[in-house]
Amino acid sequence: MTASPTSCPDALVALAQRLADAARTVTRGYFRKPVTVLDKEDASPVTVADRESEAAMRRLIEEHDGSHGIFGEEYGAVRTDADWVWVLDPIDGTKAFITGKPSFGTLIALLHRGQPVLGIIDQPILEERWLGVAGRPTTLNGAPVRTRPCPDIAHAALYATAPEMFVGPDIPLWETLRARVKLPRYGADCYAYGLLAAGFVDLVVEASLKPYDYLSMVTIIEGAGGVITDWQGDRLGLGSDGRVVAAGDPVAHRQVLAHLGGRGANG
Amino acid sequence: MTASPTSCPDALVALAQRLADAARTVTRGYFRKPVTVLDKEDASPVTVADRESEAAMRRLIEEHDGSHGIFGEEYGAVRTDADWVWVLDPIDGTKAFITGKPSFGTLIALLHRGQPVLGIIDQPILEERWLGVAGRPTTLNGAPVRTRPCPDIAHAALYATAPEMFVGPDIPLWETLRARVKLPRYGADCYAYGLLAAGFVDLVVEASLKPYDYLSMVTIIEGAGGVITDWQGDRLGLGSDGRVVAAGDPVAHRQVLAHLGGRGANG
Repeated sequence: MTASPTSCPDALVALAQRLADAARTVTRGYFRKPVTVLDKEDASPVTVADRESEAAMRRLIEEHDGSHGIFGEEYGAVRTDADWVWVLDPIDGTKAFITGKPSFGTLIALLHRGQPVLGIIDQPILEERWLGVAGRPTTLNGAPVRTRPCPDIAHAALYATAPEMFVGPDIPLWETLRARVKLPRYGADCYAYGLLAAGFVDLVVEASLKPYDYLSMVTIIEGAGGVITDWQGDRLGLGSDGRVVAAGDPVAHRQVLAHLGGRGANG
Repeated sequence: MTASPTSCPDALVALAQRLADAARTVTRGYFRKPVTVLDKEDASPVTVADRESEAAMRRLIEEHDGSHGIFGEEYGAVRTDADWVWVLDPIDGTKAFITGKPSFGTLIALLHRGQPVLGIIDQPILEERWLGVAGRPTTLNGAPVRTRPCPDIAHAALYATAPEMFVGPDIPLWETLRARVKLPRYGADCYAYGLLAAGFVDLVVEASLKPYDYLSMVTIIEGAGGVITDWQGDRLGLGSDGRVVAAGDPVAHRQVLAHLGGRGANG
């Protein structure tokens, strides 16, 4: 499918904001409160907050238009062949959430025929919301934000959530990349992409991500002047392999791709 | 010198709060604003905010009592042989600060004849302040907090700021400890100790710290029911080697010391 760049109707932008509002209310109510932490098969901690938050967002989508597809972390996929598909991660960074650290966030993406046309990162405790809409400037709490220049990754601030996300041959690629930048850092979760969009971080390089972890980032990073692809330089979609390179400066993005052995995003 | 446990006069607790207020005002004013980032010889980023914040705190101490000693990260030491010595880190976690991530904090410790009798962690953006005073319950924004039980480190949430803090023979000790706990995590800076005191994190194990990084933690952790020592189980002081183990549960503390090869804190 070769969809041309699509815009996002204002009504769906408004709906996305209502989803984020609903998720924020649920999540704030459970933050640093005793909750039942269940263990999923993959041992990632899942809280009651996660599930209630996604359920609240799904209800709002179904009420708005029952033909929309939904792909959520907690409750799986319905109608993913629809023109409009919502991709939801109610609490990205559950390990931060359960240890009381406000770097987690609610992630919302909207795809039109497979292309990301809207993305939200919402940090409920700091009450910060990044909104990216295809063809529009990215905003943080309503104010436009821009990435900063970084013409050489030797000067870059680089984030990844945790070293565990890199496995096998990705480990030496990641370790040598860390050694090349000025300020490598772990532990900002999805918040790192927001900081990149706002011009405080130069690179986020991650792996082992799921579509609900990265699809919301596409319009946010691009609408702020940055570049975000997989490790081969290809555009991110539902079928990407979970490896992500986000850069505020296209030059830095090409340098990282060259380091990782992929081809440049623009050639 | 074998000082008996000392209490902290209310007037000095009030002064410490004023120091934290002053630092918070300065720091908030520079957060996510363009600042001159200088490079110290050790390449750690130092901002103008750091220096103005420490200068403001030092002025308040000098105005209160010119005989008190001061040991600060930015402006060094005066009168450290005084009975009362203030130990100041205006922005602990400067790398978090300059990348816009609110896990940094202002750290204030007060020593009486070498013994920590007061500690503050202040997070200026989240407006959270942990206060520990010898012999009193630790508070977070005025409300008492307690560590949580963790009778087996296999179930522990463990934080350290970054892998770079472990060098030489500490690296395998750290890596094998990470592998033994349930939830190892990087990237909370000083905020991790506050989360431990409030019962959301079980362990903080770090190395390569300076006295202004760890002395404020002593009364905060102990007043919340936890244990904090060096890697040999000895009480922390100005002369400690910069390796720290903080645990919410004394049993978990002994398990970590045994792992690290030191002797148990209580025998």
